[in-house]
Amino acid sequence: MSGNSFGKIFTLKTYGESHGRMIGGIIDGCPSGLKLNLKKIQKELNRRKPGQSNIVTQRKEDDKVSLLSGILDGVTTGTPIGFSIENLNYKENDYHHIHKVYRPSHADFVYEKKYGIRDYRGGGRSSARETATRVVAGAIAKQLIKGIKITAFVSSVGSIHLNKPYHKLNLYCLEDTPVRCPDPLVAGKMIEQIKIIRKAGDTLGGVISCIIQGVPVGLGRPIFNKLHADLGEAMLSINAVKGFEYGSGFSSVQMRGSAHNDIFNANETTKTNFSGGIQGGLSNGMDIYFRVAFKPIATIMRKQNSIDIKGKISYLEGRGRHDPCVVPRAVPIVEAMTALVIADHWLLNKIIF
Amino acid sequence: MSGNSFGKIFTLKTYGESHGRMIGGIIDGCPSGLKLNLKKIQKELNRRKPGQSNIVTQRKEDDKVSLLSGILDGVTTGTPIGFSIENLNYKENDYHHIHKVYRPSHADFVYEKKYGIRDYRGGGRSSARETATRVVAGAIAKQLIKGIKITAFVSSVGSIHLNKPYHKLNLYCLEDTPVRCPDPLVAGKMIEQIKIIRKAGDTLGGVISCIIQGVPVGLGRPIFNKLHADLGEAMLSINAVKGFEYGSGFSSVQMRGSAHNDIFNANETTKTNFSGGIQGGLSNGMDIYFRVAFKPIATIMRKQNSIDIKGKISYLEGRGRHDPCVVPRAVPIVEAMTALVIADHWLLNKIIF
Amino acid sequence: MSGNSFGKIFTLKTYGESHGRMIGGIIDGCPSGLKLNLKKIQKELNRRKPGQSNIVTQRKEDDKVSLLSGILDGVTTGTPIGFSIENLNYKENDYHHIHKVYRPSHADFVYEKKYGIRDYRGGGRSSARETATRVVAGAIAKQLIKGIKITAFVSSVGSIHLNKPYHKLNLYCLEDTPVRCPDPLVAGKMIEQIKIIRKAGDTLGGVISCIIQGVPVGLGRPIFNKLHADLGEAMLSINAVKGFEYGSGFSSVQMRGSAHNDIFNANETTKTNFSGGIQGGLSNGMDIYFRVAFKPIATIMRKQNSIDIKGKISYLEGRGRHDPCVVPRAVPIVEAMTALVIADHWLLNKIIF
Amino acid sequence: MSGNSFGKIFTLKTYGESHGRMIGGIIDGCPSGLKLNLKKIQKELNRRKPGQSNIVTQRKEDDKVSLLSGILDGVTTGTPIGFSIENLNYKENDYHHIHKVYRPSHADFVYEKKYGIRDYRGGGRSSARETATRVVAGAIAKQLIKGIKITAFVSSVGSIHLNKPYHKLNLYCLEDTPVRCPDPLVAGKMIEQIKIIRKAGDTLGGVISCIIQGVPVGLGRPIFNKLHADLGEAMLSINAVKGFEYGSGFSSVQMRGSAHNDIFNANETTKTNFSGGIQGGLSNGMDIYFRVAFKPIATIMRKQNSIDIKGKISYLEGRGRHDPCVVPRAVPIVEAMTALVIADHWLLNKIIF
Repeated sequence: MSGNSFGKIFTLKTYGESHGRMIGGIIDGCPSGLKLNLKKIQKELNRRKPGQSNIVTQRKEDDKVSLLSGILDGVTTGTPIGFSIENLNYKENDYHHIHKVYRPSHADFVYEKKYGIRDYRGGGRSSARETATRVVAGAIAKQLIKGIKITAFVSSVGSIHLNKPYHKLNLYCLEDTPVRCPDPLVAGKMIEQIKIIRKAGDTLGGVISCIIQGVPVGLGRPIFNKLHADLGEAMLSINAVKGFEYGSGFSSVQMRGSAHNDIFNANETTKTNFSGGIQGGLSNGMDIYFRVAFKPIATIMRKQNSIDIKGKISYLEGRGRHDPCVVPRAVPIVEAMTALVIADHWLLNKIIF
Repeated sequence: MSGNSFGKIFTLKTYGESHGRMIGGIIDGCPSGLKLNLKKIQKELNRRKPGQSNIVTQRKEDDKVSLLSGILDGVTTGTPIGFSIENLNYKENDYHHIHKVYRPSHADFVYEKKYGIRDYRGGGRSSARETATRVVAGAIAKQLIKGIKITAFVSSVGSIHLNKPYHKLNLYCLEDTPVRCPDPLVAGKMIEQIKIIRKAGDTLGGVISCIIQGVPVGLGRPIFNKLHADLGEAMLSINAVKGFEYGSGFSSVQMRGSAHNDIFNANETTKTNFSGGIQGGLSNGMDIYFRVAFKPIATIMRKQNSIDIKGKISYLEGRGRHDPCVVPRAVPIVEAMTALVIADHWLLNKIIF
Repeated sequence: MSGNSFGKIFTLKTYGESHGRMIGGIIDGCPSGLKLNLKKIQKELNRRKPGQSNIVTQRKEDDKVSLLSGILDGVTTGTPIGFSIENLNYKENDYHHIHKVYRPSHADFVYEKKYGIRDYRGGGRSSARETATRVVAGAIAKQLIKGIKITAFVSSVGSIHLNKPYHKLNLYCLEDTPVRCPDPLVAGKMIEQIKIIRKAGDTLGGVISCIIQGVPVGLGRPIFNKLHADLGEAMLSINAVKGFEYGSGFSSVQMRGSAHNDIFNANETTKTNFSGGIQGGLSNGMDIYFRVAFKPIATIMRKQNSIDIKGKISYLEGRGRHDPCVVPRAVPIVEAMTALVIADHWLLNKIIF
Repeated sequence: MSGNSFGKIFTLKTYGESHGRMIGGIIDGCPSGLKLNLKKIQKELNRRKPGQSNIVTQRKEDDKVSLLSGILDGVTTGTPIGFSIENLNYKENDYHHIHKVYRPSHADFVYEKKYGIRDYRGGGRSSARETATRVVAGAIAKQLIKGIKITAFVSSVGSIHLNKPYHKLNLYCLEDTPVRCPDPLVAGKMIEQIKIIRKAGDTLGGVISCIIQGVPVGLGRPIFNKLHADLGEAMLSINAVKGFEYGSGFSSVQMRGSAHNDIFNANETTKTNFSGGIQGGLSNGMDIYFRVAFKPIATIMRKQNSIDIKGKISYLEGRGRHDPCVVPRAVPIVEAMTALVIADHWLLNKIIF
């Protein structure tokens, strides 16, 4: 009800603020008998961690996850999996400059107005720090939905776009560049652009594309919880996301039905896949693919005008260690949220309705 | 759980197939003491109804709603509002040609695979006929959220785009043209394009833009149910929708943070509104605006190849009366779903958390 | 959220007031492919119907159910099953005497206070008329959970008690007497007592016992939704219910653990069944049994003091046709609610967690 | 869905096994701006803690709660309150004797069958250890619902009953005796009985009564979530509970309507309160009271026959430190669950429907 839970069957509920003692969550609904590879969970967290390369924030977050319940000798028991991640910067005092001033295009103002109180330290609950918990849950979801492969990658950074269709890319080399774009040439240009923008104390937006392969036919729910609607909500819940499209997306607007319709082959596949693997809200067995737009994040290393909590004009100096472009580190988050949606529908599908 | 319900507090659950006896639903969570204008409810339904002009389908659906409970002397009592709309085409026999054949890019194939049975008549449950129930609920939601104004309009049909910013449009003349584009000149071009495509037996996609004005600060929930995430899910649940973006949307990708940040005025408004009225998932008091992409619908008046339920190659002849472009009739549906989201968050906001 | 829905997977949402145009509901979550015996549904409704014998109310309610969706050629399609039952007494004017006066121990006062408005006609939404919708849903649930047998019967009426253990009763003769007590001798005494109380213009309480046989091991959820907790909530949601106990119930208080523990046989059954077929909230394969206490209903055919909506002392004359003892007609309602709980857990159990 | 969450608005989700690293939970939906008395939370936990007196288990559980989020300078921020309690007996090896054998009338057998795996250490998730998390959440709920007073006390232990009506008891002396019965004389007899049963290596059942005072009119939801139905479910979710009755309860069965009806006074109170403060599922402003039956717990200090996980007849020796009668320590749990129900309905009531 309060927005801190995700999923219907395979569910995640999270708690924690950016600079509180710890963040954590409860994964509930994971079936029993799943042998967990604990290293893979930590590995996913490490992909999201700050300081992996010189194009992301150098902030220190160790992000070591502790699994607290629901597992016996490495196997899930069907009971809730509690977990926590300590905040190394707990009690750090780097945020007093925003105690009384609202950062533009951040959540400071709306939280103050809605709740009458806000944890100003690093954005509190509204900080993207919270997405670390999603990555933990997503890493477990990935292990549950065996045979389904989720791959996200950076397809745009500012004005640099990767224009190749995904099946012409070598998705296995994703981690070869710090920008997580599978085309080395385009990746190079993206990195260059990020370095320039960082030097300028500014930020850039980007696009993440995601492919889901191996989905059986029939995942999804009709009417209000269509598979793509749930994917859309999941993506739009990630910090800084401004748009979502799947299959032919916004470009379908200019197409004609006769060209857009995906004609069946005798083996129940389709000749084209403008549908993006989903028809009538249900998976049709073809690859699912979608794109997610991220705005340039609001924290810039420049002086900005703003107002304080009394409505007086004030200003803010950029401070701290922040990402000049959020998409490289958002790749594992997109994958995690995708895994959560698919795991949820995959379990739900065991009850046919 | 099964995808047939929408909302958490102000909720809608629907039933019914395109060619069953009736469609209907239950609106639950509408507070007591709301004096309903029943004519306005029917009026909204009429906006969605087929046969309003010569650019939409001429199919006969009278769409007369009956309110069955929850209202005493025109005032809501706080108990569920049951309602139904009879299907005039009940028992019509126009659909035997698709009994055994899957229509390309429709839900026929996936429903058959998921459920092992499907109501083939007019697409059954997967038909957009179901959206009539959403319009009823949305019309009541609109009356609940007094002071909040929701306006959707057609901003693209195929390659014809309305490029003016919404505050330069006269949104009151929306219903003056059958295409529901508030610029008469652009509307004329859109109508022309739709007529051409209809003659060709083909279909076109389009974009609907929507503005929400008068939203108080603080609507929305943090983390997973951000206001724009709920709006996105609502829009993506509408038949034929392929994409959603709010505020600066996909175009934000190419902007820099220093240009994208919305700087505060002393009165707590912002100088720009790239945020689209939502920050950190909560409304900030500025106008909320978003865009929704609709694909060209799959039913074309042409012969198409396909397969039958045994996987044998077959073909389909286009038949019946269908929309060449769905967006004009989808305008009241976009408004209805928006109203449902806003009503839900508006009520939820009475419990501050 | 608003209390008008039941169940998590196999769900029922209802609408309607006692004297509105109709009552009805939506059954959502029933799997596809279930061949429905429609006559059995109507037959269950007839068991609950007034006027079946001379010991129940002679009020006229025809209770003919119409199934509106979700079924194709008698087989469920996995989409919501909408249904409605017309109210024959719609617009009847027999209730003006309670328009401004609160009936003692009814819901009139609290509804008026909570909602500021109330449908006074026959108690509106708070009337037990609403339970007819539960019987429809329960009748479908019963057909879903093949192999599981639910039998409720009257075990007390006022001071007349049926003291035999259930396995010594012939539960097949349940419908032989209008009081639905399977022991003819005790049934006779109960009927006599009801006739006496009716002549006195008064009412009597009673107890319904219920047995569930054939439940597989493992139904139920741990911690907060234990199987007996869900059964308890279901029973306590029925009008006039004041208490619920399962297995050894309140009598366990005086037992010692050494006598109360159910010792296992080698075949995994237990020698005794004080647990009532449920351990740790999960079914253990033994018979589940519980008892439900009903108060004497509040509508008596006597003059009573009360207050009007302005707080002025007033009085009420008993009027209309009412049940002197509610338990005979409540038997199919107890069975229906039991079937809803079991169907829900039975489906949920397909996802092991 | 999985049974590990409680509440709709003010919610608790818990994790943890008896002998895992820690137990904990997330309280979500607590409004912002509540100044928390942290000592009172720990104090409630201490009331439930083992080893408080010589009539309860001497097991060591320190039960020190850590609040991890959602609080800034002692005031709630409206974000989730994560918390944890370390298990001191983590990795204790006292439970190998039940690794392969099912304890009679425990959850061992059903967990093994349902999940295919079970944390055998101290009963794992099915242990009443989990109720410590409920007490934490309940202690916060109590602080939220200012002006509402919840008092539970022991009214039966085995065959010793407290027969006075609650308004003749001095509920303030509740903590004066370790048995938590507010009548010193009866308390003395209860303690004596518990000591005898402990010496016998056996266990006894009991009854807890609970009174809720100061509830405003109109709390609760109609139809399926009547206030007493939610209270009933809450109580039945507590380990060892076998029955629930409110107001006149099972004794109402033998009453006549004319005697049972609560006649109104001019000030909208009622002369009697057989209704138990709830009519039509909604609070009517009178005291709410109910009774909860607890069975003699299954762990006895005697040798018992049983079967092992292969279905072979085996036996169990009683071991460890256990409660001879659970009700004294269950008093704070009953209060906590009551507080959770009331807080939930109290918040929900802010949205009138």
